[in-house]
Amino acid sequence: MNALEIIGRKRDGREHSPEEIEFLLSAYLKADIPDYQMAAWLMAVCIRGMTRAETLALTQAMVRSGEVLDLSGIPGTKVDKHSTGGVGDKVTLIGPPLAAASGVKVTGGTLDKLESVPGLTVDLDPDRFIRQVREVGIAVAAQSPHMVPADKALYALRDVTATVPSVPLIASSVMSKKIAAGADAIVLDVKFGRGAFMPDVAAAEELATEMVLLGEGAGRRTVALVTAMDNPLGRSVGNALEVQEALDALAGKGDEELVQVSLVVAREMCWLAEVDADPGDALRSGAGRAKFLQMLAAQGGHIEKGLPVAPVQLPIPALGDGYVESIDALEVGLAGLELGVGRKKKEDAVDPAAGIVIEAPVGGRVRAGEPLAVVHARTEELARSVVPRLQKAWRLSAHEVKRPPHVLARVDKDGVTRA
Amino acid sequence: MNALEIIGRKRDGREHSPEEIEFLLSAYLKADIPDYQMAAWLMAVCIRGMTRAETLALTQAMVRSGEVLDLSGIPGTKVDKHSTGGVGDKVTLIGPPLAAASGVKVTGGTLDKLESVPGLTVDLDPDRFIRQVREVGIAVAAQSPHMVPADKALYALRDVTATVPSVPLIASSVMSKKIAAGADAIVLDVKFGRGAFMPDVAAAEELATEMVLLGEGAGRRTVALVTAMDNPLGRSVGNALEVQEALDALAGKGDEELVQVSLVVAREMCWLAEVDADPGDALRSGAGRAKFLQMLAAQGGHIEKGLPVAPVQLPIPALGDGYVESIDALEVGLAGLELGVGRKKKEDAVDPAAGIVIEAPVGGRVRAGEPLAVVHARTEELARSVVPRLQKAWRLSAHEVKRPPHVLARVDKDGVTRA
Repeated sequence: MNALEIIGRKRDGREHSPEEIEFLLSAYLKADIPDYQMAAWLMAVCIRGMTRAETLALTQAMVRSGEVLDLSGIPGTKVDKHSTGGVGDKVTLIGPPLAAASGVKVTGGTLDKLESVPGLTVDLDPDRFIRQVREVGIAVAAQSPHMVPADKALYALRDVTATVPSVPLIASSVMSKKIAAGADAIVLDVKFGRGAFMPDVAAAEELATEMVLLGEGAGRRTVALVTAMDNPLGRSVGNALEVQEALDALAGKGDEELVQVSLVVAREMCWLAEVDADPGDALRSGAGRAKFLQMLAAQGGHIEKGLPVAPVQLPIPALGDGYVESIDALEVGLAGLELGVGRKKKEDAVDPAAGIVIEAPVGGRVRAGEPLAVVHARTEELARSVVPRLQKAWRLSAHEVKRPPHVLARVDKDGVTRA
Repeated sequence: MNALEIIGRKRDGREHSPEEIEFLLSAYLKADIPDYQMAAWLMAVCIRGMTRAETLALTQAMVRSGEVLDLSGIPGTKVDKHSTGGVGDKVTLIGPPLAAASGVKVTGGTLDKLESVPGLTVDLDPDRFIRQVREVGIAVAAQSPHMVPADKALYALRDVTATVPSVPLIASSVMSKKIAAGADAIVLDVKFGRGAFMPDVAAAEELATEMVLLGEGAGRRTVALVTAMDNPLGRSVGNALEVQEALDALAGKGDEELVQVSLVVAREMCWLAEVDADPGDALRSGAGRAKFLQMLAAQGGHIEKGLPVAPVQLPIPALGDGYVESIDALEVGLAGLELGVGRKKKEDAVDPAAGIVIEAPVGGRVRAGEPLAVVHARTEELARSVVPRLQKAWRLSAHEVKRPPHVLARVDKDGVTRA
């Protein structure tokens, strides 16, 4: 086989055989195919797309590029939960503990937010990870560098060649990691809107469908929820702030929408694991919160002295009166980035205490001067710098506002069911 | 400006500003943009295409990347002739000398075929080149490495990333070199068919139109002929063999089709130079042949002791009886490549004497055992190795055959005129 011929086929919109995809990927990992050839192929894929069969072949080739975690030593159905990411999305801190408390064996990939818990480690070796899932019922670990090396290499190249936005490439990237992580079943949360990667519900349904079929194609039962991310989810954005919000929600004091979507996720996890329990019971009894604390403790985390708190807490006053019609999740996310919630560049440090707590949620009413939100920052100057951006993010209406629905569709191997 | 944003625009099918194209190209030449980013952009261009304005901007940016030859010291209109290349295409050895003998100042790029003439050099410095055009009326020189360095860099990358077949990229590559070479007017021969790069007449017309508009856009009067290359042109394929055939044709002993198309080219050159002469006169008088010999002599070439001759000359017998319906130019070209007419790899040596002389042209009649062609090769073994390929190239018919038309269209700034 010849790399140029293969690249030419995709350039001309033709379909690759699984052997061609395997050849291309393994030759690239051996550096037999240089970056510039892979970049040309990735661009051709971005524009021409890939069939389901091609995307499945790519995903499987990526899984085969490294180690696959063997979870067969854990009895029962192991369920993983993954979100494509959104502003203020802490569902993974609430739904999975509720499912674990209901009897599901839950595995998960690393979560930056959890690293704000003092003492907690996500560097669990496979033995420790498996033991914790068996004994505690839930564990979160960083992905081993030996798993899916092809994804790391491809993603690094996509990032610098404008070839990130491609449904087959995104789907194969996510699903190869989930499949290699070894769970029997996967619940996906595919977000769209201002604060998410997918622009609209149609694109999110397409990605969700692709990922579900890739999971099922690899023998993993997979369900995806398609959820709106135009407004931030819940009341907080930030690492420690979101862990605290999750703890509060698990104690029965959560934002209603956040709790509802977390319960939907937990129920999907129970359903996939064929566990006949209602996660609502685990919420009401406090068993979900206990399970979350048990997981933190098993990974060395301790919160008895509290979570990191920012030295500056600056309220952002509303500029007018009205009902909150929307809060631009993108602007809130960018403000968070400025404060140090995430990294703008790889070498940036994350501030675990930084973030934003929403005081005037969508549907709420404010008067001029009342706080829209409170900014948590390491300096007064930094806090002040995001005020105009945040004030712009709130859109007020003279009339009462109802919050739009959050879960818009559910996708499984039989297709899309709209809510 | 940001390379990733620019690449993303072309990925999404949007149009670049001239400034974006200039930025991309000059940053690439300064190595501020790595090969993998340029490769991604080239693939996006291959698939998405470019508007006329973009192609013109790319061509002009390529011209600006290096030196432009100043031919203003030569009085009159300087006319260049370029062929996109085909099997047995020696029109550039016949038409331009006829035009020069008619009074046109003719400039030309290097021709591998001419290098088979003993003693001839194409390494003329600009002063010598300009002096020769002024005094002899015609000169052929290798392009200076200081001219259009962007094309060399881009072409090398296209060649290894499956991004060669793109009308805007081909057109800008050819025309940037022609524009930098300084002629006032350009006659293009755009070939299509089995032995050419463009697959069909529509693709060739598209490329011809693009190139004519690029030439005119740079202030050069430009005409393109669209010609068929399903059968080899004339009777020979090979370096010295084609030079000999050109000399024979200029002596009035040429293949009729070859002479006709050479006269069409010479007349276009006269027309562009506003020289009121008939190149047919230069053919009949022998002035064209004398001009060709004068050019060879001015560049150090001497043919008084003859051109290189291959030690082995092997006739290829026909396998059956019939009229020659077609001769597959691609197969003949590949046989030539095997014999050393051209290079399969950059490091291969060219055999100036090697080639194929057609004995049974299209429209001719052969009986089994009579020669279809004679192979000229450096060894008997090499000559025998191409016999099956050549026998397969000839297609015989039981019925009389008329040779199909060769010149199918003429393109100038006013559009396409079909023959």
